[in-house]
Amino acid sequence: MQVINTIAGIKELKRNLKGTVGFVPTMGYLHAGHIALVKQAKAENDISAVSIFVNPTQFGPKEDFKTYPRDINRDLAMLEPYTDIVFIPADKEMYPAGYNTWVEVNEITDVLEGAVRPGHFKGVTTVVNKLFNIVQPDKAYFGQKDAQQAAVIKKMARDLNMPLEVVVCPTIREPDGLAMSSRNTYLTPEMRKGAPVLYQSLQKAKAMIEAGEKTVADIRREMTSMIIKETLATIEYISFADNETLKEIHTIKPPVLISMAVKFGKTRLIDNIVIK
Amino acid sequence: MQVINTIAGIKELKRNLKGTVGFVPTMGYLHAGHIALVKQAKAENDISAVSIFVNPTQFGPKEDFKTYPRDINRDLAMLEPYTDIVFIPADKEMYPAGYNTWVEVNEITDVLEGAVRPGHFKGVTTVVNKLFNIVQPDKAYFGQKDAQQAAVIKKMARDLNMPLEVVVCPTIREPDGLAMSSRNTYLTPEMRKGAPVLYQSLQKAKAMIEAGEKTVADIRREMTSMIIKETLATIEYISFADNETLKEIHTIKPPVLISMAVKFGKTRLIDNIVIK
Repeated sequence: MQVINTIAGIKELKRNLKGTVGFVPTMGYLHAGHIALVKQAKAENDISAVSIFVNPTQFGPKEDFKTYPRDINRDLAMLEPYTDIVFIPADKEMYPAGYNTWVEVNEITDVLEGAVRPGHFKGVTTVVNKLFNIVQPDKAYFGQKDAQQAAVIKKMARDLNMPLEVVVCPTIREPDGLAMSSRNTYLTPEMRKGAPVLYQSLQKAKAMIEAGEKTVADIRREMTSMIIKETLATIEYISFADNETLKEIHTIKPPVLISMAVKFGKTRLIDNIVIK
Repeated sequence: MQVINTIAGIKELKRNLKGTVGFVPTMGYLHAGHIALVKQAKAENDISAVSIFVNPTQFGPKEDFKTYPRDINRDLAMLEPYTDIVFIPADKEMYPAGYNTWVEVNEITDVLEGAVRPGHFKGVTTVVNKLFNIVQPDKAYFGQKDAQQAAVIKKMARDLNMPLEVVVCPTIREPDGLAMSSRNTYLTPEMRKGAPVLYQSLQKAKAMIEAGEKTVADIRREMTSMIIKETLATIEYISFADNETLKEIHTIKPPVLISMAVKFGKTRLIDNIVIK
């Protein structure tokens, strides 16, 4: 496993490499969800590459950029068995003085996470575009947990004709159903105990739809009443949307993305399922 | 020379190609300025590629997109001796239904041409980013005549870490000094006769600076009085700027970009020189 901190270092290394590259961009503080992506990248390509970069431009001014959890040594130990190249740039390597270019996907970034976190996806698409250009992978791997992010990155890559394939991999969950996330570390033990309610409510929605329910308002009401029983939980949104356009729907017509953001104290958790 | 109309066609062709690629993006209606770029692309690379695409997204709603001169057969005949690959996509190939991703360079796009043509450079950077991703050249060639465009594209490629080199080539001029431009065809014979005043005024500025003049206001006054003697000419701007940041200066301190836009009737001509 080679650890590289500069863009020039990656480009130099790539010049002498042969074979396909599978790439997993991360913000570090890795969990089993990331490792599943890396394993798949390694299985499907000759070389696996991972980046660790807490991207400042995708955090809002009141968000948790400074406190976002970081532990590079732990990350490297977790990556070691599956990873050939790790890219860990400094902020100034990615955004030198005078940096001024932005990549933006419109419309599907206005809803859900984009509505609550203005500018977030502009930061995401910009940094991912840069990382794609630096690493030049054949395939790049993202988790379904960040469903909108995956859709936005797929759209960017397709619209800009980027020469790679974006692969979206299933959400990895704790045994009790909570989706793996670096931000789970923010939860107090009491919050952590209630957090599986997100997935439970998604499973409830799935069961209702399988039983023939078509009215989104009725399903959302059931989900809401489940979640508000957790007294520490505050619902930010529960969305039923077309899985590609992310436009809200009122009657179930697969494929449907059911997604949600729920706050426990200051910690926002997101989760989703796709009904096919 | 292979003529290809689809993105898939270019990607397929590239898979089987070996060697370096030099790329010249154009809007067609070629002149000796374009051909000089293609010759240089061919001289410096194994393969020369040219695109012909009148990009709708870089024209304002009141600009000349519909009337922009087009003559593909003439273009192909001019390219044939120097060109290996010509890419001529339809509008819908580049911007299919639902297209929604934009690449934007801020700040240096707010001045000069960008100030007069809002949204112009957003269209330019987006289409050039796409073309770079489609053709994946080693080097891309642009003319110094569009000095701000060249600076903006260099900035985009550098900021986004695009894996190629942007090469800027000297302006090619008619014998009387008029910079070659596809839009010169709009000029009436009378306007055409007066059009060399742009270059003459730039040469005057250069001579004044070489003689020790440092005050921009004095040089601009001389240039203005030369140009307004052409009764068909209307000055849009005469700019003295830092050649990299494009910030206006008031005292000559090389490298200086002296650039101008002058209208003859509805036809805007631009020209520039760099004082090193």
